Amino acid sequence: MFDLNRYLKERAELVQNALERAVAAGEGADARLFDAMRYSLLGGGKRLRPILALAACEAVGGALEAALGLACAVEMIHTYSLIHDDLPCMDNDDLRHGRPTNHKVYGDAIATLAGDALVTDAFKILARSALDGVAVQRVLATVAELSEAAGSGGMVGGQVIDILSERKRLGLDELKLLHSKKTGAMFRASILGGARLGGASDAELEALDAYAHALGLAFQVVDDILDIEATTEQMGKRTGKDEAAGKNTFPALMGLEESHGFARELERRAHDALAGFGARAQALRQIATFVVERGR
Amino acid sequence: MFDLNRYLKERAELVQNALERAVAAGEGADARLFDAMRYSLLGGGKRLRPILALAACEAVGGALEAALGLACAVEMIHTYSLIHDDLPCMDNDDLRHGRPTNHKVYGDAIATLAGDALVTDAFKILARSALDGVAVQRVLATVAELSEAAGSGGMVGGQVIDILSERKRLGLDELKLLHSKKTGAMFRASILGGARLGGASDAELEALDAYAHALGLAFQVVDDILDIEATTEQMGKRTGKDEAAGKNTFPALMGLEESHGFARELERRAHDALAGFGARAQALRQIATFVVERGR
Repeated sequence: MFDLNRYLKERAELVQNALERAVAAGEGADARLFDAMRYSLLGGGKRLRPILALAACEAVGGALEAALGLACAVEMIHTYSLIHDDLPCMDNDDLRHGRPTNHKVYGDAIATLAGDALVTDAFKILARSALDGVAVQRVLATVAELSEAAGSGGMVGGQVIDILSERKRLGLDELKLLHSKKTGAMFRASILGGARLGGASDAELEALDAYAHALGLAFQVVDDILDIEATTEQMGKRTGKDEAAGKNTFPALMGLEESHGFARELERRAHDALAGFGARAQALRQIATFVVERGR
Repeated sequence: MFDLNRYLKERAELVQNALERAVAAGEGADARLFDAMRYSLLGGGKRLRPILALAACEAVGGALEAALGLACAVEMIHTYSLIHDDLPCMDNDDLRHGRPTNHKVYGDAIATLAGDALVTDAFKILARSALDGVAVQRVLATVAELSEAAGSGGMVGGQVIDILSERKRLGLDELKLLHSKKTGAMFRASILGGARLGGASDAELEALDAYAHALGLAFQVVDDILDIEATTEQMGKRTGKDEAAGKNTFPALMGLEESHGFARELERRAHDALAGFGARAQALRQIATFVVERGR
């Protein structure tokens, strides 16, 4: 019987160990940079994106090791985005994963540079994974896809739309576009990259693309729900701030009860996309359920 | 007869056109992000790093087109580093290339994100250049080298050392280490990457490594000299600020006249490294002289 909690715990430990090696502690004049990078990178989080990369690799029959470089890279990029989002010139947040944010500990300049180093080093870790026997062509395609997902056409573009739309009311399609860039693109790159590095066929990549789309959207809908229904203590970060900031959220646009229903619909779509994968995709299936159940 | 001014002008135009295509104007809700990226990327600068990438490719007999993706990538990374360096939480500069800095025009949040997008998109542009017929293995090796040069072990690491050493006196070896990371690493990645993409042999890469080392150091020595001897109007950025900020510079450590002599010695070393290359390296040779003569 597949035990998701045990699976998530084991994979998170695998990722943690790989990240410890990917960003080692420094000893020279720049040791403080590595301290700052490691503070945010190793200090917690669900490791959802790297675990998805590993699970997608397994779902197509690949060896875990093939996707471990990508797993580190997506977590490093996710961490950099949180460090920069928390800066005073952005969201100005003091708390993340229940601890002071990076700039509160290291100052704004070092926090900015720690984020810069994490996103840059991510491509080094991914590119180097080709030295470990993964086909060069697949790794380069994954570099292209990851930089596309994280950059102007993906995560950063979504972040800009988010900032610029704070004071205006978005339609539902605009809100979906925002999140497909801001969070969806990195979910997609994690899942498709993991599958590609594991040797996925075109048909498998297409099915996983549908899974990734549903999962990424579900994650954001549930995040919006939790900002209303959960406490700061439960989440390890400040909640209730979306409504206070007049942010565009799914509950604000479609209602809280309808948002719960939409999340369940997305869970169904994610499961449907995996219909042809059999037992190897049980982790991906249960992760979709896990993501949606966080909001219940 | 080789005409360096004409060469630099023609190559800068080639780079400018490629950058225009690499970061196209946006039309959607994120158009302001692309405006901000293009404002700093297309607004000037000597294009020294991308021209070096192209010249190194030519010096080993490669076709210019093989290094054009890398040329764009190194300029995008250089531009992002300037945008972030100019932020209020870093150097807090108002003027760059004779124009208001990015955050003065677009605000701190968008400027931070424009820098984030430029460094991320740089790897997309480089990775995609493999689609244009350049060998996949060479491109992936260049991705690894560029991310290493730009990240924690290179440019960002050097920036952190620079910030942390502002209030203390460095030795000459420490100052050289700082600059080998802060500016040298990106010069080296531009030159070695351009040569690799052009099909360089190991012996050619070794010689160009020595050239890159001398050139990068010469560039910084001359930059320190110009901060003392040139006017703000001549440079298009604020000068005289190193001394005011108590920064560690070559003139402060070794004296102004000795710094001029050191720059000339580095020019000789750069020329020596190119002894075996013949006429194909005339651009690299004259660029070394050009860099040093800026300070005379």
